[in-house]
Amino acid sequence: MLVLITYDVNTEDAAGRKRLRQIAKQCVNHGQRVQNSVFECLLDAAQCRMLQAKLLTIMDEKSDSLRFYYLGKNYQTKIEHFGIKAGYDPQDILML
Amino acid sequence: MLVLITYDVNTEDAAGRKRLRQIAKQCVNHGQRVQNSVFECLLDAAQCRMLQAKLLTIMDEKSDSLRFYYLGKNYQTKIEHFGIKAGYDPQDILML
Repeated sequence: MLVLITYDVNTEDAAGRKRLRQIAKQCVNHGQRVQNSVFECLLDAAQCRMLQAKLLTIMDEKSDSLRFYYLGKNYQTKIEHFGIKAGYDPQDILML
Repeated sequence: MLVLITYDVNTEDAAGRKRLRQIAKQCVNHGQRVQNSVFECLLDAAQCRMLQAKLLTIMDEKSDSLRFYYLGKNYQTKIEHFGIKAGYDPQDILML
């Protein structure tokens, strides 16, 4: 299933920038960074639980915001993109 | 249906910050800002087309990225939130 992960952190702060880098590193193992703090990951239920647990250890729950959106298997028709960084098929990434 | 709108713009630039404010203004008419550049809007198909048209006139297609995710009507089980700014039900906002 496709899991959209959005992460809000104050990147004026060096520690915040570090957390964003760490979040991105974990997410791109399973998908792609589609915007600065938006990641699309292809995960099964077990991978999703593991990634969620990792991200929760990285984030600062008192200052950051982390949201997960579960788009299911038929996500291709549920996404539209405009502007720079054109849309991609996350399945292509995993097949490499 | 719930439409998730994510907007990536360089906010180090005054013009970029202005575009983000304008995007936010349009989106919060139909929902809520859940993160700095992430908006959840409750829209029917016609409203969605109108909002999309407005946002496309605001964004700079050569430097910004705008993504729409269509989460349908049964979105409540498709969202999980951690950290600050706890989850909300966008239907509550429209009922005010």
